[in-house]
Amino acid sequence: MQLHFLGTGAGIPSKLRNVSSVLLDLLQETNQMWMFDCGEATQHQILSTSIRPRKISKIFITHLHGDHIYGLPGFLSSRSFQGGDSPVQIYGPKGLENFVQTALHVADTKLNYPLEFFETREGVIFENSQFIIEAKQLIHGVDSYGYIIQQKDLPGPLLAEKLIAEGIQPGPIFQLIKENEEVKLANGRIIKSKNYRGPVKKGKKIAIFGDTKFDSSVIPIVRNADVLVHEATFSKESQDLAMAYYHSTTADAATIAKEANVKKLILTHLSSRYQSQDVAHLLEEAKQIFDNSYIANDFDTFPIL
Amino acid sequence: MQLHFLGTGAGIPSKLRNVSSVLLDLLQETNQMWMFDCGEATQHQILSTSIRPRKISKIFITHLHGDHIYGLPGFLSSRSFQGGDSPVQIYGPKGLENFVQTALHVADTKLNYPLEFFETREGVIFENSQFIIEAKQLIHGVDSYGYIIQQKDLPGPLLAEKLIAEGIQPGPIFQLIKENEEVKLANGRIIKSKNYRGPVKKGKKIAIFGDTKFDSSVIPIVRNADVLVHEATFSKESQDLAMAYYHSTTADAATIAKEANVKKLILTHLSSRYQSQDVAHLLEEAKQIFDNSYIANDFDTFPIL
Repeated sequence: MQLHFLGTGAGIPSKLRNVSSVLLDLLQETNQMWMFDCGEATQHQILSTSIRPRKISKIFITHLHGDHIYGLPGFLSSRSFQGGDSPVQIYGPKGLENFVQTALHVADTKLNYPLEFFETREGVIFENSQFIIEAKQLIHGVDSYGYIIQQKDLPGPLLAEKLIAEGIQPGPIFQLIKENEEVKLANGRIIKSKNYRGPVKKGKKIAIFGDTKFDSSVIPIVRNADVLVHEATFSKESQDLAMAYYHSTTADAATIAKEANVKKLILTHLSSRYQSQDVAHLLEEAKQIFDNSYIANDFDTFPIL
Repeated sequence: MQLHFLGTGAGIPSKLRNVSSVLLDLLQETNQMWMFDCGEATQHQILSTSIRPRKISKIFITHLHGDHIYGLPGFLSSRSFQGGDSPVQIYGPKGLENFVQTALHVADTKLNYPLEFFETREGVIFENSQFIIEAKQLIHGVDSYGYIIQQKDLPGPLLAEKLIAEGIQPGPIFQLIKENEEVKLANGRIIKSKNYRGPVKKGKKIAIFGDTKFDSSVIPIVRNADVLVHEATFSKESQDLAMAYYHSTTADAATIAKEANVKKLILTHLSSRYQSQDVAHLLEEAKQIFDNSYIANDFDTFPIL
């Protein structure tokens, strides 16, 4: 599991940072990738990576500002043109479907795959056997959400050596023990699977936020996350601008990370006023509050360990 | 007067060519630039130039396929964000206004300048004291237009030496002679301005086409143009693909240029199947029919002499 940052700038593209998009790479877990936000030229960014658009099966939009959605019609069209034929589910605030369908309709574009839209509201928005995803409303002037992706705990590995030591030889029976709570052997003995499993592997928790003011109400839902991706549009020296424009500073984001006891904080959505040489200072502001802070640059990959 | 090519590829962006956009630079003539088509990431391309978005006052859209319009909402938003406050007029087929207004509305974007839409139909779509612009319907499966920009003839320069030889000394009187058909001097003599003007300077004629099949009906309207910008999605070896997808080959475009007796042909909108090393061959195909042919690459500038 890893995060690929495709765009880490705020508002307008710059030569240094494109507008917002980040991919949660679940190729190992599900052979899929999930996209969070799709600013203009996200498909262009993908051209500089080995990412295959057809692997992107879900797209979560945090809010409808142009720097988070204007790449969506082009991405979806090119995914089709390049042979993508598996369905895509799109989650986002009310109005998103109208935008995407209008763009595809006026362009006379017929996708070679089904598109499904789900309107994001606070609460659980998706669940399957491996993941549960919750949306949390943020504070940004327009509807803006954080998405909290909780991987379900994974059963511990089968303790093959313990089985062998008890005289059970490897073979199809091992698979049966893996897949069932109890298995009756040929000799009548009942094997309780839980006695032959190593410790449960805790599922990962990843929180990916849209634009927001500092909002301490998010702390409970983000608590103990493995990774928090939080916007930091401004330096803490520009707290007034952050307040005025419903954005966060480096210090705001680090305070959430600290209070919520997350393991890692990744800052993104930096204002285009900041140049390469400003990044170290911005990072230092965050680290003073929460040491395990990082600033994402376009094309950075962060493994989720 | 010059043309700046911002995107010269067809359908989807590649690392070599972005999707369609070309600028007619009229800074010398009018202190403005006019944009023709605005594919996704046109604003990103502009970041690599010295072009100022606020100077772009008119946008002409040839047709509504995504690779010609998906950059428009982002371009317009960033132009506002970067301080552009002068009006923009947008010309394009029916449906364009709905797309742009939907995109701006869902994103809650309020531009700092007025936007005016004009639905393109065949015939004269704009005229002022300097230019007259006609639209010509092409053949592309969806409504697609070519725009023919005719600069009006410029009066010849004032023949100052002839005036001086006749005893009229330089001063405000020269400006009066320039601006009026007749001027009465203090001594009662009538000066007819036309007798003191050099030869009229012929206005330039530029034709910028949208996607189209070979269409000989365009020849009369393009006749004797200084520049024809024509799509050449395919090599002449792929005539069957060009026909099937309502596109032109290099040879199709060159045939129009030859029959219409234009001065210069610039080919654009090349399929992403063609790599850098294929360009010489594509150009040769065109040159065999019309020698003064060029293939535009992203960021190429062509002066209109």
